[in-house]
Amino acid sequence: MEIREIIKKKRDGNKVSREEIETFLNGYLEGMVTDYQMSAFLMACYIKGLDDEETLWLTDVMTSSGKRFDLSEMPGARVDKHSTGGVGDKVSIVLAPLMAAADVVVPMIAGRGLGHTGGTIDKLEAIPGFNTSLRFMDMRNILWETGVVITAQSEEIAPLDKRLYELRNATATVESIPLIASSIMSKKLAEGLNGLVLDVKVGAGAFMKTPEDAERLARTMVEIGNSSGVKTIALITDMNEPLGKAVGNALEIRECINILKGKEEADLSELILTLGAFMLIIAEEIVTFNEEDTSLSFNEVEITDDLIETKRHKLQSLIDSGDALAKFVEMIESQGGNPEVVANPALMPVASNMKPVEAPESGIIQFIDAEKIGHAALLLGAGRTRPDEPIDHAAGIILNRKSSQEVSKGDFIAVLHYNDDRNLDSAYQLVMDAFKIDKEPPPQRELIKKVIL
Amino acid sequence: MEIREIIKKKRDGNKVSREEIETFLNGYLEGMVTDYQMSAFLMACYIKGLDDEETLWLTDVMTSSGKRFDLSEMPGARVDKHSTGGVGDKVSIVLAPLMAAADVVVPMIAGRGLGHTGGTIDKLEAIPGFNTSLRFMDMRNILWETGVVITAQSEEIAPLDKRLYELRNATATVESIPLIASSIMSKKLAEGLNGLVLDVKVGAGAFMKTPEDAERLARTMVEIGNSSGVKTIALITDMNEPLGKAVGNALEIRECINILKGKEEADLSELILTLGAFMLIIAEEIVTFNEEDTSLSFNEVEITDDLIETKRHKLQSLIDSGDALAKFVEMIESQGGNPEVVANPALMPVASNMKPVEAPESGIIQFIDAEKIGHAALLLGAGRTRPDEPIDHAAGIILNRKSSQEVSKGDFIAVLHYNDDRNLDSAYQLVMDAFKIDKEPPPQRELIKKVIL
Repeated sequence: MEIREIIKKKRDGNKVSREEIETFLNGYLEGMVTDYQMSAFLMACYIKGLDDEETLWLTDVMTSSGKRFDLSEMPGARVDKHSTGGVGDKVSIVLAPLMAAADVVVPMIAGRGLGHTGGTIDKLEAIPGFNTSLRFMDMRNILWETGVVITAQSEEIAPLDKRLYELRNATATVESIPLIASSIMSKKLAEGLNGLVLDVKVGAGAFMKTPEDAERLARTMVEIGNSSGVKTIALITDMNEPLGKAVGNALEIRECINILKGKEEADLSELILTLGAFMLIIAEEIVTFNEEDTSLSFNEVEITDDLIETKRHKLQSLIDSGDALAKFVEMIESQGGNPEVVANPALMPVASNMKPVEAPESGIIQFIDAEKIGHAALLLGAGRTRPDEPIDHAAGIILNRKSSQEVSKGDFIAVLHYNDDRNLDSAYQLVMDAFKIDKEPPPQRELIKKVIL
Repeated sequence: MEIREIIKKKRDGNKVSREEIETFLNGYLEGMVTDYQMSAFLMACYIKGLDDEETLWLTDVMTSSGKRFDLSEMPGARVDKHSTGGVGDKVSIVLAPLMAAADVVVPMIAGRGLGHTGGTIDKLEAIPGFNTSLRFMDMRNILWETGVVITAQSEEIAPLDKRLYELRNATATVESIPLIASSIMSKKLAEGLNGLVLDVKVGAGAFMKTPEDAERLARTMVEIGNSSGVKTIALITDMNEPLGKAVGNALEIRECINILKGKEEADLSELILTLGAFMLIIAEEIVTFNEEDTSLSFNEVEITDDLIETKRHKLQSLIDSGDALAKFVEMIESQGGNPEVVANPALMPVASNMKPVEAPESGIIQFIDAEKIGHAALLLGAGRTRPDEPIDHAAGIILNRKSSQEVSKGDFIAVLHYNDDRNLDSAYQLVMDAFKIDKEPPPQRELIKKVIL
């Protein structure tokens, strides 16, 4: 099979076969296909698209390029949650120990921040000593011990995806729904999961700017997951406004600790409980674990509002009882972090300077632009524009108000935390601009827009 | 300007600016833009297209990447002919000395064969000693002396085009009309021409398979030429059937010598005289050379059938008088070749074996498939599939009959010339298959399909 013929097929908008995708991608791994041939192929995929089958095949080859965790001997269901990335999205950090407290095994591989969005791994690294570079053996040991682990993607996991992502990043072929879907799912399918809940963000602060694109991405990933034996559900959720009030790594860990201690944070708590409820439905209702031979079966379950409510209730009670917080402490310890941060968050990096942002007028906050807040945090040092850049874990922004709340002119609507003031003025201006204030109350924010089963 | 933004623009089908094309291509030359970024860009160009302005800018940067011949001090008009490639297309070898005999200066940079099409440079190299690797200084000296030179593209000429062509060849982005047009024209514009006649082939043996594509390519090149101060005319000509009767390097030189000696070869002689007539119209009617300050001016001229006929007549008389043949001898001598081949063609490589192909039935030849004949010649060793492969100058095919001629079953319709018999059977079968024989006379072959001014 000629490599150029495969490129040509996609160039002309024809469907490539499973065998052709395998030949092309394995040829790339073996050095028979060059970077420039791959980037031409990726551009053709970007422009001409891939159908669900092609996307599934691509995903499968990427997963197979690395290790697949075999956790089949572990009792119970292994369920993960993955978000497509947003601003102030610290959901995983609360959800992972919370689900483990509910006896769901969570083997989570998470990412780092890039551009205006943060990453779970960066946030966890604000905890002194917390090790996010675990190898499979360590990960399995920790899972047996505590039922939860959060680690960065290692070289062992879908190495082909990493190489393709770097090429796509250099050649303007990142924003392709099938390529994004296969990149995300190739890593998730390496985790040895039985279930997966996807949080597909849509809005100003998300990669998917329109509900149509978000839904297309969600459906593609659900299709890949279900076709691969992982029960997958996607929620499409709002990312026009940051989640919770903290943006920036140590600041976000503080907010997570507060939530695990029982302090509610309207949108953030709502999203954590709903995503968790779907994870629990998969673990407790859909997947049945056979103790005898460690086999699994999947049940057809009607997901009613009542069922969701029951699961949310259970999770809330695990927060109220302190079990989730205890599991978080256990998780920190098992990954080498200092668990005293839970009692004393000031053990994490703290910024040497703070600057309040004053409301420019009185009124009701209509909306806080997530992308602008994310960029402002990036400018203060909380993020990075290139994958290898160091970040300042202390830097970030606390929003004192959220949308629908009243402010008077001169109120402190946000506080900037920073060590480096080089971009302070631009960050300040971005935060000012992010707040839209008007006289009338804004329409109710719809946090969870759709569920894709 | 961010490199990825330029790729993105073309990826999304938007027009890129002159400045963006310059930044991107010069960045490539300087190593700031990688091969994989270039190939992603080329794939986007392939799929989304380039308009006339973008194509002109691209051409201009490619020409500027190398040397532009300054021949402005030479008296008279410098006019070249370029063909998009075919089977048995030895027009240049007759036309270049013929035009020089008519006092037109012809600084021709020609190509080598690839796949089923032959190349002028390979054919000339069948002449013992003939040097096709001239540098600019040598080329200029020869032009002053004889008025004609045919040489291969050197590293000095549009080096960027060479690099892009190699990338395109590896990434299935060759067959793009704007990319083909800019590749051809970037080299022609380096020749310091005042006029150019393009022979755009269409049909089974050509790269352009449809009249629409051929016309699009022709118009794009005419536009580039005229916008760059080179009076350019394109003829769209038939390449369903090989030109003349010889296919293969030394065999074709023999046929050229016969034509220069006055032997007519229906389609081939017709095409040479017509292309030559347009070259002469440019040199004698359109371009005016001012002896005082060596400046040029261009006249509006109505190209009537009478005018074409007059010019054809003049060229025919230069063949009949032996002037064209004498110029050919002069050209061979000036480029270091052995001029005795003109008297004794057997001084060129001669194949050790010949095998006739018998007509499988009686009837009238409808058509001889140029692509099949070209492939058969390639299999016998006359061509190459990769740019660096050696070729056998002796190998090839002589067609004893052409379309519209009668044959009886068992007549020798062609003869295969070969030294290496490894692919003899496949070549034989291809030649058999190339001849379509039927009872009725075929429709008249339309050799020159259109003139694009």
